[in-house]
Amino acid sequence: MDTVNFVLQGDLCFCENSGVLKTLEGGFLVCRNGKSAGVFPQMPEEYASLPLINYGGKLIIPGLTDLHTHAPQYGFRALGMDLELLEWLETRAFPEEARYGDIEYARRAYSLLVEDLKKGPNTRFCFFTTIHVPAVILLMDLLEESGLVSFVGKVNMDRNCPENLREGGENNPETSLTATREWIRLCGKYQNTRPILTPRFIPSCSDGLFRGLAEIQKTYMLPLQSHLSENKNEIAWVRELCPESKNYGDAYARRDLFGGDVPTIMAHCVWSNDDEIQLLAKQGVFAAHCPQSNANLSSGIAPVRRLLDAGVPLGLGSDVAGGVHTSIFRAMADAIQISKLRRALVNQDEKPLTLEEAFYLGTAGGGAFFGRARGFGPAGSFEPGFDFDAVIINDTGLAGPEKLSLRDRLERVVYLSDDRHIESKYVRGKQVL
Amino acid sequence: MDTVNFVLQGDLCFCENSGVLKTLEGGFLVCRNGKSAGVFPQMPEEYASLPLINYGGKLIIPGLTDLHTHAPQYGFRALGMDLELLEWLETRAFPEEARYGDIEYARRAYSLLVEDLKKGPNTRFCFFTTIHVPAVILLMDLLEESGLVSFVGKVNMDRNCPENLREGGENNPETSLTATREWIRLCGKYQNTRPILTPRFIPSCSDGLFRGLAEIQKTYMLPLQSHLSENKNEIAWVRELCPESKNYGDAYARRDLFGGDVPTIMAHCVWSNDDEIQLLAKQGVFAAHCPQSNANLSSGIAPVRRLLDAGVPLGLGSDVAGGVHTSIFRAMADAIQISKLRRALVNQDEKPLTLEEAFYLGTAGGGAFFGRARGFGPAGSFEPGFDFDAVIINDTGLAGPEKLSLRDRLERVVYLSDDRHIESKYVRGKQVL
Repeated sequence: MDTVNFVLQGDLCFCENSGVLKTLEGGFLVCRNGKSAGVFPQMPEEYASLPLINYGGKLIIPGLTDLHTHAPQYGFRALGMDLELLEWLETRAFPEEARYGDIEYARRAYSLLVEDLKKGPNTRFCFFTTIHVPAVILLMDLLEESGLVSFVGKVNMDRNCPENLREGGENNPETSLTATREWIRLCGKYQNTRPILTPRFIPSCSDGLFRGLAEIQKTYMLPLQSHLSENKNEIAWVRELCPESKNYGDAYARRDLFGGDVPTIMAHCVWSNDDEIQLLAKQGVFAAHCPQSNANLSSGIAPVRRLLDAGVPLGLGSDVAGGVHTSIFRAMADAIQISKLRRALVNQDEKPLTLEEAFYLGTAGGGAFFGRARGFGPAGSFEPGFDFDAVIINDTGLAGPEKLSLRDRLERVVYLSDDRHIESKYVRGKQVL
Repeated sequence: MDTVNFVLQGDLCFCENSGVLKTLEGGFLVCRNGKSAGVFPQMPEEYASLPLINYGGKLIIPGLTDLHTHAPQYGFRALGMDLELLEWLETRAFPEEARYGDIEYARRAYSLLVEDLKKGPNTRFCFFTTIHVPAVILLMDLLEESGLVSFVGKVNMDRNCPENLREGGENNPETSLTATREWIRLCGKYQNTRPILTPRFIPSCSDGLFRGLAEIQKTYMLPLQSHLSENKNEIAWVRELCPESKNYGDAYARRDLFGGDVPTIMAHCVWSNDDEIQLLAKQGVFAAHCPQSNANLSSGIAPVRRLLDAGVPLGLGSDVAGGVHTSIFRAMADAIQISKLRRALVNQDEKPLTLEEAFYLGTAGGGAFFGRARGFGPAGSFEPGFDFDAVIINDTGLAGPEKLSLRDRLERVVYLSDDRHIESKYVRGKQVL
């Protein structure tokens, strides 16, 4: 279906790029060529001839962005949550990921995932997958068909992992690099689904593999995602593996894979110290804050206030299956809640996140990453020029004894809504639900 | 409708009173005279003539107990969550509670609450309400009609609160005591709905009011609920008000209102020190752990492992509207998650809660309170003699690519289920949903 021009009417609620929350009851939201042409209290004369779709009494918000999630872990989400991280990886995550060598299993599992995601409030995603190129392409096909927008990463791993998930033998990064190049060549056919380089994390990639990935990145101009400072044992391990690095982020930077001109996401940043935070900010690296996963895996609570104050670009991630919920509404609520616990238990001076801030992070905050990459506009706001991602929410089932302001309805939706309340969804101007 | 005798067949999942999780696929659960007669792998000969209801492939678990929640706060749940506790009380909680002097408003708001609770997995509740006797009786009527089981408390407050919520003038506890006696006399008509004394907390009740409540308690043999050690400012305030007390719990004890022979619930216990924990254990006082509320209101994380190790009877509470979710499944998941953050940030030696422990707390743990009170049996297990509260869960919508064990299905239900998955519900042997 081609992108068309139209106008939606409803109760608009969005953050401007500056972070300020705007609300407009019964407002008009104009889509032109897949992009927002802005919001208006009355129908502007110049758009009067466009088709008008009336969502009276419904909330209309920008689509949400999940800046960090693992597609192959969806199948076992909300299982084994009592395990410690290492045991969880060994008994749940790695055995499950190994199954994606079987394309029929991948089809079954990834179909369930994509069907689920279509019904939720997210419109954009950054996925980790596995090392298996055919399964990665299968997922990208399914995503493309769904109309959702995503970056999808074939994982690179050539050390410190189970044999059946290691690409190539000892000191032979070429297997992983060849597979990566092959995968990239297959990705040209998509409109809404783009490749992103995905070395799992420092411990799982040899120096040779990182060197090859840096070359591939320059050749194909690809963005990159990985993990950073998620838990203390991991950080100690990286220090052992990279004694020359000042911190974990510096280990990526010394491998020429830490932002700068290249759009880059680092998930977690729970234990990033001031130096690392400064480096993230200087390099414009996006931090993907994954509050629920950080609780489930006993990692800790990321210093979100300090990341914001330092100017680190920030979005939210579900991190399924470290997190169990796909909806970024849940990540917003979790982010607020654990930021309050951080203040109560770690540092009284770090102000908790507000509703407006969490909503910004889950919309324009994470959506900005797409504006950095080639082929997409920025997402997550209704300001003119943003990609037209809009979610229509019927919140009558959440009503109370009294009429609420638009801002209060948004708060209730963030804390209490589920898929039942998502009535429709537009991505890049196309209705996908 | 009278209680009848029958048998349910399905995938049974429950904790024994000891805390051990039992699972039985396709098992038989027998109800006799509103109580469990036990679970059986085959249909026992002696019950072969009873009606059999087949819930093949569905989970059957004991009803959940919400050991602490505020009925009048349901109307503004998930609103104003960015406010600090004191500001939240002044701008949200107290003004809303004052409206329950208007019986029509109470009817509208309490009807929404009870309709919602009928659809969820909880079968038992301990409610705080407001000071207004007609509204309290209205709620009790609605609850009785719903078939749910509850303790409902008319709140006592004669100091340190807004004028329009203060019962009587300065140094005149008689207004509150008279209203309390009047209310108790009106409670004789219920089968499933019982009164519980509910002084809001130490700061809101004069010494005279506490003396009168202790007398009423002895006269009518009523259980009691209140708040304990929720946040640090509150504790400092109590220390100021009761300089003679060793701790907050001791302040209740010196007023002869801290357990012993009388079934008693204290909500929160976030900052209970070792002395207070020992006192809770010695007096057999139930602690109601409200993990989400403690996060939302920036209170902190209760030392659940220490409470358990000390032998304090423990259950879970939603604490709406400090918490925003009514389901005790959510409280189970939250309790596990924040116990992991407590280990990560406060004390590495305090082991996080397991799924089995959290499930126990939300079922037999809190349900034990009902076994302590007159007129009810214990609830929350299928061991013989427990009140027959059973929830039928259709979890097919939560299925993954592979068949799961019963224990894993339970874990997924705890983290991911919502009202859509609750197919039916029995309370004291009567089907209420």
